[in-house]
Amino acid sequence: MRTQVAIIGAGPSGLLLGQLLHQAGIDSVILERKSRDYVLARIRAGVLEQGTVGLLDQVGASARLHAEGLVHDGFDLLFGERRHRIALDALTGGKHVTVYGQTEVTRDLMDQRAAQGGQTIFEADDVTLHGFDGASPYVTYLESGVPKRLDCDVIAGCDGYHGVSRASIPANALRIFERVYPFGWLGILADVPPVSDELIYARGQRGFALCSMRSATRSRYYVQCGTDERVDGWSDQRFWDELRRRLDPETAASLTTGPSIEKSIAPLRSFVAEPMRFGRLFLAGDAAHIVPPTGAKGLNLAASDVHYLFEALRELFLDRSEAGIDAYSQTALARIWKAERFSWWLTSLMHLFPEQSPFEQRMQQAELDYLVSSEHAMAALAENYVGLPY
Amino acid sequence: MRTQVAIIGAGPSGLLLGQLLHQAGIDSVILERKSRDYVLARIRAGVLEQGTVGLLDQVGASARLHAEGLVHDGFDLLFGERRHRIALDALTGGKHVTVYGQTEVTRDLMDQRAAQGGQTIFEADDVTLHGFDGASPYVTYLESGVPKRLDCDVIAGCDGYHGVSRASIPANALRIFERVYPFGWLGILADVPPVSDELIYARGQRGFALCSMRSATRSRYYVQCGTDERVDGWSDQRFWDELRRRLDPETAASLTTGPSIEKSIAPLRSFVAEPMRFGRLFLAGDAAHIVPPTGAKGLNLAASDVHYLFEALRELFLDRSEAGIDAYSQTALARIWKAERFSWWLTSLMHLFPEQSPFEQRMQQAELDYLVSSEHAMAALAENYVGLPY
Repeated sequence: MRTQVAIIGAGPSGLLLGQLLHQAGIDSVILERKSRDYVLARIRAGVLEQGTVGLLDQVGASARLHAEGLVHDGFDLLFGERRHRIALDALTGGKHVTVYGQTEVTRDLMDQRAAQGGQTIFEADDVTLHGFDGASPYVTYLESGVPKRLDCDVIAGCDGYHGVSRASIPANALRIFERVYPFGWLGILADVPPVSDELIYARGQRGFALCSMRSATRSRYYVQCGTDERVDGWSDQRFWDELRRRLDPETAASLTTGPSIEKSIAPLRSFVAEPMRFGRLFLAGDAAHIVPPTGAKGLNLAASDVHYLFEALRELFLDRSEAGIDAYSQTALARIWKAERFSWWLTSLMHLFPEQSPFEQRMQQAELDYLVSSEHAMAALAENYVGLPY
Repeated sequence: MRTQVAIIGAGPSGLLLGQLLHQAGIDSVILERKSRDYVLARIRAGVLEQGTVGLLDQVGASARLHAEGLVHDGFDLLFGERRHRIALDALTGGKHVTVYGQTEVTRDLMDQRAAQGGQTIFEADDVTLHGFDGASPYVTYLESGVPKRLDCDVIAGCDGYHGVSRASIPANALRIFERVYPFGWLGILADVPPVSDELIYARGQRGFALCSMRSATRSRYYVQCGTDERVDGWSDQRFWDELRRRLDPETAASLTTGPSIEKSIAPLRSFVAEPMRFGRLFLAGDAAHIVPPTGAKGLNLAASDVHYLFEALRELFLDRSEAGIDAYSQTALARIWKAERFSWWLTSLMHLFPEQSPFEQRMQQAELDYLVSSEHAMAALAENYVGLPY
C-alpha cells in the first residue's frame, strides 16, 4: 500500500491532520494501535481555543460542536475564599473558549473521515517506522496478525507521549526538557449539574481544585492529590468532601453531588522533545510535548502543531517546496514554549507544593492578589487562556 | 529629653518621616548610630517612583532632584543579543521614573532638616529601645560617651536590616519570610558617560548585567557574580570585559570604560518580617523588609512605608485616633508583598541560576520571549516598575 502521508495515531491531532490533508487533495492513511471504541472511551480535556474551533470549522467537522458546545466568556479564580472572575471576552477584545469534550471532537472527526472514505486502520499491531532518515520512508504493522507495509513520502507522528513515533528517533538526536510535578489530579465525571456555568480554578488551603463540566447535566471535577495515591482510596463521598473543603462556603453549599461515572488519577508533567522533525518524520501534539492540564492547553497545542504541519505539507506536496517542512519544528516550538510556560505558571500559581518555603507560599499569594488587582495581569492571563495567535 | 516620635536611623526613610511629621507640627528626634559623613558616603539605589518623588515634593525637598534628576520614560531588556524597550510612559498612561541617587535624597533631606532646626543626633552609641510594649516608650543611648534618655510617645524604627529596632522585638512576635539568592551583584561606579540614556537590564549567557547611571557623566554598572567572590578578585579590566560579554555586540562596542571610583559586591536577598508594629514601635523600610535590587524597589518601598506610617501618626497625634496605627502593618504589607513579588519575579527572570534545570532555563527564556511579544505583559511589568499605587 502507498500513501503520501502515513499518520500514526487516530487521536484528534492525527484525525485533524488527515482531514486538512484530504481537503487539500493530499492522501493519508492513519494507523492506530487501539480499537475505535477504545480511542472514543478516553476521557480528556474539553476546553477549545478559538483557533482550534477554527481548524474544525476549516475541515467542516464543527456542526455538532457549535450545536452542543458551551461558549465560555470567562472563568473564576477562587482563593482566600473569594471568587474572582476573569472576563475573557472583555479582556481579549471579544474572544472566548468553547467547552466540548475531546472525545466528541475525536468522534466528529472519525465520523467525517469514515463518511469521506478516508482510510483508518485500527488495531494495527507492531507499528514500526522505517527509512524516515532517507527519501523513502515506510511503516510496517500487523493487521489481524498479517504483516503489512505502508509506503509513504512522510510520516506524521501523532501517537502521543507513549507512542512509537518519538521512540523511533535516535535518542541522541533529541533534547528532552522535563518537569514532573509533586502531585496529581484526581478527577471524577458525574451526571450532576455543574456548580457554576463557568469553570472555577480554586487554590484552597488544602490544594488545588477545578470545577468544570461537559454539559449542563454532566460535571467534571478535580482535586490535587499526592502522586502516591490510588483511586480505590477515594470513595465518592471522600472526593465530594475534599472538593467542598477547597471551595468557598457559598460555592461548596451549592455543589450538587452524585455517583461518579468515571474516576481516575493523572500525574502532572511538563515535557518537550526538540526538534519535532527527524528526516521525513514529523511529531505533532503529545508525541512531542506534554503540558500539565492547568489551563487546558494539551489538545489546543496539538491543534496548532497540526495547523503548522499541514501548512508545511501543503507546501511540500502542492508547491514542491521544502521551506515549510524545514521551518516546521522551529515555528511550532515557538508557540509551544509559550504554552508550556503558561501551563507551568498557572500550575505553579494554583497548586500546593509540598516543598514550598514560607517565602514561596507568600510569593504565590502575592501573585494571586496582584493578578486580580491588575487589568494588565488579568489580560495577560486571558490572552494565554484563549490561546496566543498562530 | 522628650519628643513625640523617636526616629531610629537617619537614612532616607527616617529623614523623610521626620520632615512629614515636622510639616504636620509633630515633633521628632532622630538618633543615628553613624556619623553624617558616613551616612552620606553610602552608595545605594537611584531609581525613584513618582510616588517617592511626590513625597519629596510634599515636604519641599525636591528642588535639586527636579533640577538634576534624570526622568526616564523607559528602559531596555536585553536578551538573546537583542534590546527590547519597555516604554514606561506609553504602557502606563504617562508615568515615568526619576534617576537620582539615594545619597542625594538623603543629603537633601538632611540639609532641609538642619535648616529647619530639626534635631538629629549622629553617632548615638548603644541605642536601646525601652517600654514600647506599654504607653511610655523611651530610648537610651550614649552621646559622646554620656548616657542620655529620650522619652517619646512612639518609636519609628527606620534603621535598616541590621538596626536595633527589629532586633528589639521579641523573636516569637515576628514571622520571618526569606529567600537568599545564589549570587550577588558586583557593582562599580565610574566617571564615564553611560552606554545608554536609559537603563539596560541584560540577561546574558553568562548571567545578569545592569547598565545604569547617576548622571550624564557618571555610570553605575553591575554584573551578577558568585556569592563567594571578593572585590579584590575583580580588576577594573576584568569587570569591563565581563560586562561587555553580557551585552549585545553593538552595545558592548559603544561602552566607554574608565577607572572605577567605587567597587563593591552586594548579596541578594528577599526578606519580610511580620508584623511591622509591636506596641508603640513601628518598623519602616529595610528594618522590616529587603528586596533584591532588580527593579529598584528598596528605597521606594521605604518611602511608601513612611507615607503610611506618617498618615497613621498624623491620625494618632492630630485626630487622637488609633485606627491608623492599628491598620499600619496590614496596609503597608499589602503593598510590600506585591513589590516583594515583583522584585523576586524580575530577579528570577533575569539571572542565571546555578541550580536551574534545562526545563527551567527554557521557562525563563519563554517568559522573556512572551513578555516582549505581549503588550499586556509589558504593561504589567511597567506598572510595577513605575510603582503600584499607594
